[in-house]
Amino acid sequence: MVTAVEFQKSEIDSIILQSVKKTLSDICHHLSERNPKYNWTGVYVVVGDNLKLVSFQGAATEHVLIPLGEGLCSLAISRNETVNEKDVKSNSEYLACFLNTKAELVVPVRYGDKPIGEIDIDSDEKGAFDRDDEKFVEEIAEKISPLVKLIYDQNEKNPR
Amino acid sequence: MVTAVEFQKSEIDSIILQSVKKTLSDICHHLSERNPKYNWTGVYVVVGDNLKLVSFQGAATEHVLIPLGEGLCSLAISRNETVNEKDVKSNSEYLACFLNTKAELVVPVRYGDKPIGEIDIDSDEKGAFDRDDEKFVEEIAEKISPLVKLIYDQNEKNPR
Repeated sequence: MVTAVEFQKSEIDSIILQSVKKTLSDICHHLSERNPKYNWTGVYVVVGDNLKLVSFQGAATEHVLIPLGEGLCSLAISRNETVNEKDVKSNSEYLACFLNTKAELVVPVRYGDKPIGEIDIDSDEKGAFDRDDEKFVEEIAEKISPLVKLIYDQNEKNPR
Repeated sequence: MVTAVEFQKSEIDSIILQSVKKTLSDICHHLSERNPKYNWTGVYVVVGDNLKLVSFQGAATEHVLIPLGEGLCSLAISRNETVNEKDVKSNSEYLACFLNTKAELVVPVRYGDKPIGEIDIDSDEKGAFDRDDEKFVEEIAEKISPLVKLIYDQNEKNPR
């Protein structure tokens, strides 16, 4: 007979969640380390009407919960397409995060066709991201989709 | 411009794979620790015509690659249903692994409806597993499905 079933299941949910966050964090770290122009790399997950920061590499940000509708981060979700802003200062939709940031690349993470999260990269260099970066980060977004889906599902079950 | 794209992508595949294996191993460990009758707990993934052991808790086994068709492990895949053998010695389909094993519970891990792997639990106690164990492990199998799918997909791409 199995004992304390509900408790065990919640423990296993927690093992999975912690591990997935750690993996996404390792990937953010990896991307920033390998690509000097990727000064800040983060993964957001859609939670209700917000984007929630789950992992990042770079300076701490106050944008840990972004209401959908604000910033380029939201634009990538509402349009369900990559946003590559070469000069953030020129874009009124940009949500200023770091003073140094000049360019931002936001790539949706999809499950099926539905955007459930995104990879957000800031660069201190104007026009940092070209078509190759877009394509590369889009492929990474596809790779991490099952991981982001796990966080997305757990948040759907236990919204906070 | 992103550099050495293919190399970076393979590194990220490897980060994901290692992390998923570690998570499954933590879960096997957790299941055996919390449930004294679960003397050996392992996760197999379908790779071509074989079942490949990816993570386990308990004694090392020589059954790291089981040709589909052999043992109760294969039966759970071919029937696509839980196999709960209360007395392995009485079942001619049983593939002897440990001398002490008296009962075996094998639960398919599905992606959609397709079995892509399984959780295999051996017990030293005859009739160790009841309907509650089946239900519990079936729920765990559902939880780990996205993780097993990641390993399954990588093996499909790089069969060895």
